[in-house]
Amino acid sequence: MNASSPPGMSQPPRPLPAEMLAQLQARFGAQLSTAAAVRQQHGRDESPFDVPPPDAVLFCHSTEDVAEAVRLAAQHKVPVIPYGAGSSLEGHLLAVQGGLSLDLSRMSQVLALQPEDLTVTVQAGVLRSQLNQAVRHAGLFFPIDPGADASIGGMTATRASGTNAVRYGTMRENVLGLTVVTAQGEVIRTGTRARKSSAGYDLTRLLVGSEGTLGVITDITLRLHPLPEHVAAAICSFPDVASAVQTTIALIQMGVPIARCELMDAHAVRAVNARDHLGLKESPLLLMEFHGSPAGVAEQTAVAQELAREHGGEDFQWATTPEERTRLWAARHHAFFSTLQMRPGSRAITTDACVPISRLAENVVQALEEAAATGLPHAAVGHVGDGNFHMIYLIDPAQPEEREVVEQLNERLVRRAIASGGTCTGEHGIGLHKQGFLREEAGEGGVAMMRALKAALDPHQILNPGKIFQA
Amino acid sequence: MNASSPPGMSQPPRPLPAEMLAQLQARFGAQLSTAAAVRQQHGRDESPFDVPPPDAVLFCHSTEDVAEAVRLAAQHKVPVIPYGAGSSLEGHLLAVQGGLSLDLSRMSQVLALQPEDLTVTVQAGVLRSQLNQAVRHAGLFFPIDPGADASIGGMTATRASGTNAVRYGTMRENVLGLTVVTAQGEVIRTGTRARKSSAGYDLTRLLVGSEGTLGVITDITLRLHPLPEHVAAAICSFPDVASAVQTTIALIQMGVPIARCELMDAHAVRAVNARDHLGLKESPLLLMEFHGSPAGVAEQTAVAQELAREHGGEDFQWATTPEERTRLWAARHHAFFSTLQMRPGSRAITTDACVPISRLAENVVQALEEAAATGLPHAAVGHVGDGNFHMIYLIDPAQPEEREVVEQLNERLVRRAIASGGTCTGEHGIGLHKQGFLREEAGEGGVAMMRALKAALDPHQILNPGKIFQA
Repeated sequence: MNASSPPGMSQPPRPLPAEMLAQLQARFGAQLSTAAAVRQQHGRDESPFDVPPPDAVLFCHSTEDVAEAVRLAAQHKVPVIPYGAGSSLEGHLLAVQGGLSLDLSRMSQVLALQPEDLTVTVQAGVLRSQLNQAVRHAGLFFPIDPGADASIGGMTATRASGTNAVRYGTMRENVLGLTVVTAQGEVIRTGTRARKSSAGYDLTRLLVGSEGTLGVITDITLRLHPLPEHVAAAICSFPDVASAVQTTIALIQMGVPIARCELMDAHAVRAVNARDHLGLKESPLLLMEFHGSPAGVAEQTAVAQELAREHGGEDFQWATTPEERTRLWAARHHAFFSTLQMRPGSRAITTDACVPISRLAENVVQALEEAAATGLPHAAVGHVGDGNFHMIYLIDPAQPEEREVVEQLNERLVRRAIASGGTCTGEHGIGLHKQGFLREEAGEGGVAMMRALKAALDPHQILNPGKIFQA
Repeated sequence: MNASSPPGMSQPPRPLPAEMLAQLQARFGAQLSTAAAVRQQHGRDESPFDVPPPDAVLFCHSTEDVAEAVRLAAQHKVPVIPYGAGSSLEGHLLAVQGGLSLDLSRMSQVLALQPEDLTVTVQAGVLRSQLNQAVRHAGLFFPIDPGADASIGGMTATRASGTNAVRYGTMRENVLGLTVVTAQGEVIRTGTRARKSSAGYDLTRLLVGSEGTLGVITDITLRLHPLPEHVAAAICSFPDVASAVQTTIALIQMGVPIARCELMDAHAVRAVNARDHLGLKESPLLLMEFHGSPAGVAEQTAVAQELAREHGGEDFQWATTPEERTRLWAARHHAFFSTLQMRPGSRAITTDACVPISRLAENVVQALEEAAATGLPHAAVGHVGDGNFHMIYLIDPAQPEEREVVEQLNERLVRRAIASGGTCTGEHGIGLHKQGFLREEAGEGGVAMMRALKAALDPHQILNPGKIFQA
């Protein structure tokens, strides 16, 4: 695999025919754009691939807009690629076979909030920051927080998680229902507002994480959570990564309901220090957060402090004010971009393995050792309470051999994760980059089942073709 | 719909041909039975349907046994119906189109326990009681507890939950991976032991709740939970059902992490008193359980007691010893059978609606009023923290008009639940009985998508045909 030809491009492009363009223009007027700048913007994400942009971009305002566009695309057998905030790390929004980008960012309404049920329904283009602002007055929050300020539609389509997943789950656990436009341009509703259901196949969970390949998600009903009565955050430095991870393992095994437990290695700490001027000790650290009643939080933190000390942790520091907490978590959320800035002009290749927690320390330590041996700049961050960690490798895009080296590191890392009973991707998705790994992880039989599902729901391969696997 | 012809029987039966029987006998010897008593036993569950039994029963010992049987069935296009503990309430295991019952109860091994990762892998025939015995020594437990001592395979196939779901989730949240025999007789593995993954379609969640219609689940990897350090259980009587439900709503909205919160109406209390001699006050009650550290439990229970008092709760009683707790929960688990005994010779029709919690009180109260108006014996129990409640109606099987009356009650109840944003089944599944409700809930478009998935994975309709929807 190399930057210029990701796997999805093995199929010939299916450009938008003039007739369809005319139909779109007649129906949508100024909502449709074929301007080079707009197309370029919709043909790039945070992945390292360079591919031609989509043929046109449609700014959708409603589910009905999406349905009409998909019906036209179905008629002409042209790809449609949903676009949210453009923050994919895996090439999800790249038009590898040409076609129409469906920009959902203007579908940004919070449609219904039911505080008494802890549920909300939002359009797909709502950003996670916007959602949290909209529900805060009701004493509620939505815990899923990928690094970027992603759209809820994109987070649903990639089964995103983030720093709170160890306590609150991922999009898998927090999506209750969806409105979806099928490949035939029909609108269906999956799930209900009930917290659980045994009513037939779990279409909601099938669509969560389907990366736009089984339907276009246009609105999402989510579970919300009460804002915790009390929150405490702490950082603790460790002599090495293994000790930090062992502390995490002990916390999980004791059943401490820790809300967030994030690892940064010394490189990552250095990067966030440089960008956000935090003055953190530049050794591996855990960034922890505890939610609950004041007494409950006190109890949790006492256990955490004790376990950290047993594992060589030092400089246990509390972030006592909301401002301090926000600053620390912002730094953590910026870790990807802060690291990127450590090598101006570079591109980042990130890994996303997730392993059973007992195997986490060895997996992280070996990945770091192998990265160090190459001499390339890198950093490690991790949602270690889930067993999920990210290596960030910085490469010079002008030097293809650096990319080769990193791809080899990545391969070794993923094979080790799979051999440990883990997965090649905890939260970023397969997209273009991990299709080979998916075959190793799910087996040919598993991928064959996925292919059969895709063929059943999208026989003409118009929904984000070339992603996850090749048809 | 009536007892003698459930919907799945609209298709002609496809009995086991002599050639296939001979092949099965040659391969499996004494594992195969065509004895009338064995077939009868595998042709009855806790549902109210009477249909002819399967043509033969195969006692499977391994995934390979299942795969070989399914390959033969595929060759002859004969139905296979997985059988676990036989405790389905919805006719899941009835051979409505004839065929081979695959009894998995002898696949009862705990295959691997990883206490440090809080995971376990079990064969499909392991019972939930057996699983809990097997993991207890490691300080762990599996929280999902349907009323019956069901098999883990059956619980997975019906997306079961039970009394602990309000805190620990359902099978949807607690199944990490599966071994599945496909309709082609191939063995695939879904999921990993990692706590989360974004690797392609969520085959695990698609199969959880698929009621044996997309694959035969032969082993299951589950999340376990640390046994709580401290447990407290309490019962509290209320002047009416609405007050009990309002107390529950307040608890959930305040974010109290209650582990169990069960409602019994006065009829259900009378039934368990009669069977288990508990001497409970025969008015609506909540049966609550709190898990955590001693201080955390004290805090939760103080809030619960205060909220109960505000809503007219009285006789707040603690079950302080493990024996007392076990006795109370056993009574709750026996509520179905205890109620059945209130009318000797009767059959029970149960409902399983689940609604957003803000709509729960009105849904339960109206269901009870409508039931009372018919004069038929009934009771209500509910996992009210989830918004899930069960009406149990007792009918005389010799009087078809009673069944008619109850079906009308059920219809009104389910329509009200769906109109409230809820589901026709929280945990029992669709089976034979709720296919019409599924269409109302998911819409024709949703059911059409389910049908397309079924046709893709099981083109010859051999996997438990006639269940969930008609092909």
